[in-house]
Amino acid sequence: MTKTDRMRKVEKLWGSRFKKKTSALFETFTAGRDMRGVLPADEKLISYDLWGSRAHVVMLAKQGILSRSEARTLIQGLEKIEQAWLKGTFRLDPSKEDVHSAIESQLIKKYGLEVGGKIHTARSRNDQIALDMRLYLRDQAMEFISAMLFLLGALLKNAQRDREKIFPGFTHHQIAQMTSLGHLWLSFAEQVCRDIQRFQGWYARFNQNPLGAMTGYGTSFSIDENFTSKLLAFDGPCQNTLDPIQCRWEPEAEMAFAIGAMMNHFSSWAQTFIILSMEEFALFRIDDSQCSGSSMMPQKRNPDALEVVKAKTALAHGTLASLLSIGRALFLGYNRDQQWTKYLIMDVIDETLSAPTVMSEVIGTIKVKDKRVLAICQKGFITAPDLLEEMIQEWGGPFRQAKTAFEKAVRYSEQQGREMISSQDLRKALMEEKVDFQFGDRFLSEAQDFKRVISRRKGIGGPSLKALRHHNEKLSKFIEYTKKWVSNRKKEHELAKRMLRNKEKAL
Amino acid sequence: MTKTDRMRKVEKLWGSRFKKKTSALFETFTAGRDMRGVLPADEKLISYDLWGSRAHVVMLAKQGILSRSEARTLIQGLEKIEQAWLKGTFRLDPSKEDVHSAIESQLIKKYGLEVGGKIHTARSRNDQIALDMRLYLRDQAMEFISAMLFLLGALLKNAQRDREKIFPGFTHHQIAQMTSLGHLWLSFAEQVCRDIQRFQGWYARFNQNPLGAMTGYGTSFSIDENFTSKLLAFDGPCQNTLDPIQCRWEPEAEMAFAIGAMMNHFSSWAQTFIILSMEEFALFRIDDSQCSGSSMMPQKRNPDALEVVKAKTALAHGTLASLLSIGRALFLGYNRDQQWTKYLIMDVIDETLSAPTVMSEVIGTIKVKDKRVLAICQKGFITAPDLLEEMIQEWGGPFRQAKTAFEKAVRYSEQQGREMISSQDLRKALMEEKVDFQFGDRFLSEAQDFKRVISRRKGIGGPSLKALRHHNEKLSKFIEYTKKWVSNRKKEHELAKRMLRNKEKAL
Amino acid sequence: MTKTDRMRKVEKLWGSRFKKKTSALFETFTAGRDMRGVLPADEKLISYDLWGSRAHVVMLAKQGILSRSEARTLIQGLEKIEQAWLKGTFRLDPSKEDVHSAIESQLIKKYGLEVGGKIHTARSRNDQIALDMRLYLRDQAMEFISAMLFLLGALLKNAQRDREKIFPGFTHHQIAQMTSLGHLWLSFAEQVCRDIQRFQGWYARFNQNPLGAMTGYGTSFSIDENFTSKLLAFDGPCQNTLDPIQCRWEPEAEMAFAIGAMMNHFSSWAQTFIILSMEEFALFRIDDSQCSGSSMMPQKRNPDALEVVKAKTALAHGTLASLLSIGRALFLGYNRDQQWTKYLIMDVIDETLSAPTVMSEVIGTIKVKDKRVLAICQKGFITAPDLLEEMIQEWGGPFRQAKTAFEKAVRYSEQQGREMISSQDLRKALMEEKVDFQFGDRFLSEAQDFKRVISRRKGIGGPSLKALRHHNEKLSKFIEYTKKWVSNRKKEHELAKRMLRNKEKAL
Amino acid sequence: MTKTDRMRKVEKLWGSRFKKKTSALFETFTAGRDMRGVLPADEKLISYDLWGSRAHVVMLAKQGILSRSEARTLIQGLEKIEQAWLKGTFRLDPSKEDVHSAIESQLIKKYGLEVGGKIHTARSRNDQIALDMRLYLRDQAMEFISAMLFLLGALLKNAQRDREKIFPGFTHHQIAQMTSLGHLWLSFAEQVCRDIQRFQGWYARFNQNPLGAMTGYGTSFSIDENFTSKLLAFDGPCQNTLDPIQCRWEPEAEMAFAIGAMMNHFSSWAQTFIILSMEEFALFRIDDSQCSGSSMMPQKRNPDALEVVKAKTALAHGTLASLLSIGRALFLGYNRDQQWTKYLIMDVIDETLSAPTVMSEVIGTIKVKDKRVLAICQKGFITAPDLLEEMIQEWGGPFRQAKTAFEKAVRYSEQQGREMISSQDLRKALMEEKVDFQFGDRFLSEAQDFKRVISRRKGIGGPSLKALRHHNEKLSKFIEYTKKWVSNRKKEHELAKRMLRNKEKAL
Repeated sequence: MTKTDRMRKVEKLWGSRFKKKTSALFETFTAGRDMRGVLPADEKLISYDLWGSRAHVVMLAKQGILSRSEARTLIQGLEKIEQAWLKGTFRLDPSKEDVHSAIESQLIKKYGLEVGGKIHTARSRNDQIALDMRLYLRDQAMEFISAMLFLLGALLKNAQRDREKIFPGFTHHQIAQMTSLGHLWLSFAEQVCRDIQRFQGWYARFNQNPLGAMTGYGTSFSIDENFTSKLLAFDGPCQNTLDPIQCRWEPEAEMAFAIGAMMNHFSSWAQTFIILSMEEFALFRIDDSQCSGSSMMPQKRNPDALEVVKAKTALAHGTLASLLSIGRALFLGYNRDQQWTKYLIMDVIDETLSAPTVMSEVIGTIKVKDKRVLAICQKGFITAPDLLEEMIQEWGGPFRQAKTAFEKAVRYSEQQGREMISSQDLRKALMEEKVDFQFGDRFLSEAQDFKRVISRRKGIGGPSLKALRHHNEKLSKFIEYTKKWVSNRKKEHELAKRMLRNKEKAL
Repeated sequence: MTKTDRMRKVEKLWGSRFKKKTSALFETFTAGRDMRGVLPADEKLISYDLWGSRAHVVMLAKQGILSRSEARTLIQGLEKIEQAWLKGTFRLDPSKEDVHSAIESQLIKKYGLEVGGKIHTARSRNDQIALDMRLYLRDQAMEFISAMLFLLGALLKNAQRDREKIFPGFTHHQIAQMTSLGHLWLSFAEQVCRDIQRFQGWYARFNQNPLGAMTGYGTSFSIDENFTSKLLAFDGPCQNTLDPIQCRWEPEAEMAFAIGAMMNHFSSWAQTFIILSMEEFALFRIDDSQCSGSSMMPQKRNPDALEVVKAKTALAHGTLASLLSIGRALFLGYNRDQQWTKYLIMDVIDETLSAPTVMSEVIGTIKVKDKRVLAICQKGFITAPDLLEEMIQEWGGPFRQAKTAFEKAVRYSEQQGREMISSQDLRKALMEEKVDFQFGDRFLSEAQDFKRVISRRKGIGGPSLKALRHHNEKLSKFIEYTKKWVSNRKKEHELAKRMLRNKEKAL
Repeated sequence: MTKTDRMRKVEKLWGSRFKKKTSALFETFTAGRDMRGVLPADEKLISYDLWGSRAHVVMLAKQGILSRSEARTLIQGLEKIEQAWLKGTFRLDPSKEDVHSAIESQLIKKYGLEVGGKIHTARSRNDQIALDMRLYLRDQAMEFISAMLFLLGALLKNAQRDREKIFPGFTHHQIAQMTSLGHLWLSFAEQVCRDIQRFQGWYARFNQNPLGAMTGYGTSFSIDENFTSKLLAFDGPCQNTLDPIQCRWEPEAEMAFAIGAMMNHFSSWAQTFIILSMEEFALFRIDDSQCSGSSMMPQKRNPDALEVVKAKTALAHGTLASLLSIGRALFLGYNRDQQWTKYLIMDVIDETLSAPTVMSEVIGTIKVKDKRVLAICQKGFITAPDLLEEMIQEWGGPFRQAKTAFEKAVRYSEQQGREMISSQDLRKALMEEKVDFQFGDRFLSEAQDFKRVISRRKGIGGPSLKALRHHNEKLSKFIEYTKKWVSNRKKEHELAKRMLRNKEKAL
Repeated sequence: MTKTDRMRKVEKLWGSRFKKKTSALFETFTAGRDMRGVLPADEKLISYDLWGSRAHVVMLAKQGILSRSEARTLIQGLEKIEQAWLKGTFRLDPSKEDVHSAIESQLIKKYGLEVGGKIHTARSRNDQIALDMRLYLRDQAMEFISAMLFLLGALLKNAQRDREKIFPGFTHHQIAQMTSLGHLWLSFAEQVCRDIQRFQGWYARFNQNPLGAMTGYGTSFSIDENFTSKLLAFDGPCQNTLDPIQCRWEPEAEMAFAIGAMMNHFSSWAQTFIILSMEEFALFRIDDSQCSGSSMMPQKRNPDALEVVKAKTALAHGTLASLLSIGRALFLGYNRDQQWTKYLIMDVIDETLSAPTVMSEVIGTIKVKDKRVLAICQKGFITAPDLLEEMIQEWGGPFRQAKTAFEKAVRYSEQQGREMISSQDLRKALMEEKVDFQFGDRFLSEAQDFKRVISRRKGIGGPSLKALRHHNEKLSKFIEYTKKWVSNRKKEHELAKRMLRNKEKAL
C-alpha cells in the first residue's frame, strides 16, 4: 500500500463533518511527523553516490589509473547495488559510517580488497559528499521550479477567469481600494517568477563539479575533471579545489534562502486566504479538500494546509539561520561542523517541496463568493480614492487641497453611519476647504461605478483588463522559456547518463 | 543488539589509526543522521499520553462522570496498551492521525464505542497534547539538569586537581595573563550553574496542569483539576484555560533558549579546546576516545565531538528562531501552525541532550601538557601586567603613567626578539616617561615568578588557591541543594504515580 | 521643546481625518527612525560609569590604594562631570574611544596625570564595561517590570468590567466556542506574569558585581569586591573573574529572550485586535488615539501601533539570534566581537521599552461593540460544543458517538443555511447514529442560552464569573508582591547610593 | 573636520604600543557606535526622493497632468532643496513625518498649496518609498560590487606573488596537506565572485520602477511608467502594481542574504587569519595598522578588525532573520510592519559596506612568515597523503590497503616522536598489511619534496603553478567583464540623469 493510499484510508476523529474527501496531498503536507518518521539522510544520496562513483570509475579507467578489467568489475558491482536499491533489497548497513563507506564496503566484500579497495583512489569523502549534495540539491531545485511552473499555470488560469471580477484591495488590514481579482492572482504570479529565478541562480552558481577537490587540496593523480563533469551534467569543474570544501554551507544556505523567500510569499497568500475566508468576510471559501475538522467541536472547518504553510515558513527561516551560523567564522578547510548542513537542508526540503503544489490545489479549488465581494465593495468608502482622482481630474486643482476636503467628507458621512461619501457631505467639505468644484447629481455614482473605476486604472501593472492582458502575455512568455530551460536541463542530465552508459559499455 | 553495541562494532574507514576505541557516546553524538532515521514524534509521547489518560479516567470516575465499572475497563485497557508498548508489541497505527486517536481507537476496538467512546469526555486534543508536551518537556528538563550536575562534578574534580597548575589566559586570541587551570574549570562551572537555573525556571513556570482547558475555553463537565494535578505531579492547574493553548510555543521556546545558551557555553569550551590542542599549541590533548580519523589522510586526529558541539549550537539557535517565529502574531486561540513546535523542540532535544555528558567525557579525559604550558607561559610578555601591578604598588604613582612606560618597554624588548621585558628596556622606558622608580636586580624575576603571581591574585573569583577554595565551596553547596531539588522533584513524580495506582485499585 | 511636545505638534499629511489627537506615546512608538537618529551608545552609560567610578575610588581609598586626598579630588571631579552631564554641558568627546576614556581623560586634564592617572588602578575596561552594562540592563529590567505591572492593572480593570460580557472564542481563525471577554483579558494577564518572572530571573542571575575581574584574570591589588557590591546594590561579587568577561553576551541574550517572548505575546494580541477590529468583524474599535490615516486615501483608519508591535517583535527575534550567534564558539577570554552585543541590546530596548505602555493604552481605550458581539455569537454553530456537552450529561452515553451525530446535525443544518443546529436536524442525526436521546422543545434553546453556557463552565481557569473571580484574586496577589519586589529593589539602589555619598563625605 | 580626520586624531589609551598608525578605515570600521550616533534614516533618502520627484513632475507635465509652468516651478523648488541639501543648509524638519512630507511641505510653504499641493498627484507614499528604497539599495549594490572588485584585485595580486609559496592546508583544525599560498588566495577569490553575482542577481530582479503603483492598486491618472523608468534608469516598470508594495521586504531580505553570505566568507578568512597569526602559529602577521592595544595590558596586539568582521557577520544574519520574519504571513496589501525593513537594511549596510575594503587592507598588508611556514610544513605528517598517492601510483595496488598500512606507519612514527613517516616504520607497516611494495632510500625524501609535491597536484583548481595560472586567467576575465558591467550600469544612471535635466530644461 503506497503512502498516498494509506493516507486516503485514514479514519479521522472528525470523520463525518465533510462531504468531500480531503486531498491526498493535503494529508501528507499537513500530517507532520506525529506518526511518520524521517529516513536516514543518506538514503536520499544513494542514487547520486552511485552515479558519481560510476563516473569516477569510468574516468579512472580512461586515465589508466584503473585497468579496464578492474573498472568493468567495479561498474558491475555498482550496477548491482543500484538494481538492488531500486528493488528494495539493498539497505544501508547501519554498522557503516555513511553511504560512501557502505557502498565501498559492499564492493570490497564482493570483489575483494584487490579490486573493491581501488574505488576510493583519487577521491576523498570530502569531495564525494560535496558531489552527492550538489547532485541531490540540483534535482531538488528542478523539482521546485517545475512545481512553481505548475503553480504559475494555476494562477494564470484563475487570472484569466477573474480578469473582470472586482475585489476589495486592502492596506493596513483596512479596505483601501477596489481592484480586480485577476490583478490579485497576477501579483502572486509575479512573486513566483522571482522565486523561480532564485533557484535558477542557484543552479548557475553551483552546478560545478567538485570531484578532484579531494580533502580540499587536490590530487597528484592525473584525473580528468572535465570528463567527469560531462558524465555528471555539470557546467564544468570547480575552479578551486578548496572552495567547494570550505564553503560546504553555501549551496545549502542559498537554497534555504530561495525556499524561505518562496515560503514567505505563500505564507502571505495563506494569511490572506485564511482571513478572507473567515465567516465574517466569506470572500473566499477554501475547498473541503483543503480543510480539517475538530476532535471536539462538531462545527469546525479549519484551513489547516494554510496554517501549516505559515509554520513551515518559520521553520525554513530558522533553518536558514542555522545554516548561515554554521558557515560563520569557520577555520581554513573542512570542519565537521559542516556535516550538519546536510540534515538541515534535507529537512527543510522535505517539509516544503510540495508547498507549491499545495498552493496550486488551494488556488485551483478556492471559491470566490461574488455576493459577498459585492457587499464589501460597497463598504468602507472603498471608492473614495477613485472619486477623489476623478474629481481632481475634472477640477484641475491641487491634490493636497482636494484630499483634505475628502477626509472631512469621509468623516461627516461616517458620523451619519454611511459607508460611502454623500453628495451633501462632499459639498459641505469642499466649501469649508475652499475647493471651488461644482458637480452634478450623477457625478458621484458615475465616478464610483465599479466597472468604470477598474477600467480607468489602465496603467502598466494595474487592475484594468488592458493591463492584465499585457501582464498575462509577459508571464506566458516567462513560463514558456522557463519550461524550455527546465527541459534543456533535463535533457543534459539524460545525455550525461547516456554518455556514461556508453562509456561503461565500451570498457 | 542495542544501538550502543552496534556502534561499538562500527568498522571505520580510518580504522587502524588509534590505539584506543572511540567512546560509545562519542559515536552516537557525532554520528548524525546519515545512517540513522528519526522516529515518529508521537512515539515519544505514548507513555505520557497513557499517564494523562489514566489520571483523566480516575478523575472522571471520582466525579461520577464515568461509572466505576467503565473506569475500571478503561484503566485495564490503558494498562494493557502500556504493557504492550513496553514489550514492543504496541505500535502506533500509521492510519491514525496521532497518538491520541491511536489509543482511543484501540480502546474502542477492544471495549466498543459504549465504553471506549467515553474516554474523550471532558477532554479535547488541544489540552491533551498540551499535557503530553509538558510532561515530556518536564522529564527532559530533569535530564538536562541531571546531566549538568554530573558535568559540574567533572569540572570540580579537574579544578581540585589543577588548582595550582598555571595556565595562559587570553584575550582577543592573544596571550594576556597567566591564570591557574583550576580557575578556568571553575569559570566553566559558573556558566553551568546558570544553565541549570534556567531549566529550573522553566520548571517553575510550566509545571502547571492544562487538563480541562479543552479547546481553550473550558468545559461544563464538573471535572477536578486539582485532583488530576496531584495525579500528574503538577504544582497546580493552569489559572486560565486559554493560556496554555494560545501559548503552545512558549514552553518550547523557553526550553530552546535554555538549550541554546547552554550550547553556547559548550561551543566556546569546544572552540577553546580545539585551538589549544592544535599541534602548535598542544596545551591540551583531546583523548583518542573523542577523536576520529580521516578516510584519505592517514595522519589525522580530528576533534569531531567538539566540532559537532559547535554545529549543534547553530542548530539550536535556528530552532529557537523558528519557535519564536511560529509564536509571533498568532490570532486568538489555537492555530495549526503551533503543531510544528512539537517537532522542532523534539529534534533539538534529541541533538543536544547528551551534550553535557559528552562535555563531561571530554573534560574528564583531556590531558594537560605541562611542558607546553610552561613554555607558553614564558612567551608573549604574559607576566607584564603582573609586573606592572607590582611596580605600581611599590612605586605608588599613577597607573596611567606607568602603563605608558610599560608599553614602551614592551616595544623595546620586542624589537630585540625578547618575549619578556628586560631590566634595561624597562629602565629606559621609565626614564623616558619620567617615572622615578628604582628597582634592584631581582625585582623583575621575583615579580614575575609564576607561583607568586598567581597567589597574589587572591581577590574573590581570582585564580589564587585561596579564591578557588572559596568558589569551590560555594559550588559544592550549589550542587548539593540542586541534587536535593532533583531528588525531591523525582519523588513527587513517583508519589503521584503511586497515588494514581492506588486510586485505580480502589475503583 | 521636549521630544513629546515636538511630537504633539507634528503636522500630518492625513491631518483632518480624526476628531481625536493621536497619543503622544503612539507617536514616538510608531515614528520609527525616519526623522529621528540614534544617540551614541555610551551616552546611555555615562551615569552608570560615573556611579561605578565613584564606588571604585571610595573603595581604593578605603583599601589604602589611593590616599584620602587623591580620592577626594577624584570624587570631586566625577561629581562635576555628573553635574555637567545633567545640565547638558558635558558632551562625550568624539575624539576619545569610549565613555571610559572620555571620563578618565577629563580627570587627567583637570587634575593632572598625578591624580587623574590613578583612577584606572586595579581596573580594566573589560570589567568596567561589564559593570556599566549590568547597571544599565538592571535598570531596564526594572523599567520593563514596572511597565508590565501597569499593563496588568489595565488588564484587570478591563477584566473586572467585562467579566459577564460574552465574546466569541476562536480556533484556527474559525469561531469555536463562546467565552467571556473577562476570560480573554485574564489570559493576557497570565502571559504577562510569566514575562515579568523572566525579567526577575534575569535580575537574580546577573545582579552580580564584575568589578575586580579586570581583563578576566583578577588583580593583585587588595581590592574589596564585597564593599563595591554594597555601594552598587549588587547581591554580591561574581564568583569567578573570567566568567563575566567571557560571557559578555549572556545577560544581553537572556534579556533579549525575555523581550522576544513578551513581544510575542503583544504581537498576538495585536494581530487579534487588528483582525477583530476590521470592519467586517467590528467586535473592537481601536481608539482614534492609536490610529493613523493615509496620505492618499481619505477614508483610512490604520492600526499602526499594533502593526508596529508586530514588526518590532520580528526585530527582537533577529536581535536575539545575533546575540546568541556572537556568543557562539568564542575562544577563551574577551574577544572584540562581544562589543557589538552592546548596540544590539540597546537598540532592541529602545524599540520595545514602551511596548507594554502602548499595549496598556490600546487596551485601556479599546471599545467593545456589544451588538456585533451578539450578532457573531449567534453564528458559526458557536454553542454546538456546549449543547453537545449538555446532551451527553443528560443522556449519559459515550462522547464519541454523540459527537459523530452532532457533526452530521451541523452538516444538515448548514446545508439549509442555518448557523445553529435545529431540533429536527439533531433528531435526524441522532437517529441515524443510533443515539437514543429524547429531548423536549425547549432543550436546545436552554442549553444554548448565553448566560447559562458561560456560567456552566466554572472549572478553574474557565470563563465563568466564579472562575474569573478566583483568577482575579490570584493575580491581584501577584501584582501586590511584585510591586513590593520592585520597591524593595529600588530601595536597595537608593540605600547603596546614600551609603556611597556618606562614604564620600567621610573621605 | 571630517570624520576621517577626527578619527586620525583619536588619542588612545593604548597609545604608545605601536610604531605605525592604525588605518583610518580600521578606525571607522571598528569604532562601533560607542561615541557615534546614527543619523535619521531618511537623510539617506533625500537625494533619491528628489530624483524621483523630479522625474515624476517632468512626467506629469509631459502627460498634461501638470501645466508646464507648474512643473517648472516645482522643478525649481526641488532643485533649490537639492542645492541646500548639498550645502548642508536643508535639514529634515523633525516635525514632519518623513522625507516625503518634509519635501512636499517645503514646496507648499514656498509656492503655496496651489502649486506645491500638486506634486503628490498620481503618487502615494507607498510607491514613493518603494522607489526611494530601490534607488538607494541599487546604489549600495553597486558600491558592494565595486568594493569587491577592488578586493578581487588585492587577492589576485597576492596570488600572483605567492603562487609558488608553500603553505599548510588544514581540515578539522588539524594540519592536513600542503598547498600553495596562491591557492589559498584564489579560493577566497572564487567566493567573492559568487558574492558579486548575488548582488547582480539582486539588480536584475529589483531594478524595476514601482512608480504608479500608488497604494498598490494603480491609478486612473494617465501616467507614463515607461517614461519615468527611463528618467530613473530602471529596466522598466513593475509589471504589477500590488507586487512592489506587498513585497516591501523582499529586495531588503535578498540584499541582506547577499551581505550575510559575503560576511560569512570574510568571517572565515578572519578566523583563519586570527588563528594563524597567533604567536604559536605566526604564519601570518597582521599589520599594526589593523590592530589595537589594550588599556591595561601593555603587551597586546589585538586583531580587532577581524574580530569585528565576525561580530558584524552575526549582526547581518540576525537582520536577515528579522527581515524575513517581517515578510512572513503578511495580509494582503501594505502593512505598517514593513516600515521597519528600512532601518534594518540600512543599519546592516552601514555596518558592512566597508567590510570588503577592510579585508582588502588586511590582505594587502598581511605578512607571511616564511620560516614559520617552512617549520610547520615539516610537522604533522603533512606530506603523508602525497607520499601515499605516489606510493600507490608506483605500486599499482588498491588505495584502501595502502592507506591502512600508512595509518599504521603514522602511528609507529608518532610513537617515536617523529612528525614524518620514517622508512623503517613504513616498511614495517607495509609488511604487516601485506603490501608488497619495495622502495629505495631516496623514495621518501623525493616523494615528499615540497616543490615536487605541489607541482604534481596539477588538476583543475589545484595548488600547482599550472592550475593557478589557469584559474587566474578565468578570474581576470571575470573582473574585466564585471567592471564593464559596473561601468555600463553607471553610464545608464548618468544618461538617465542627463535626460532628466534635458527634459527639465525643455519645460
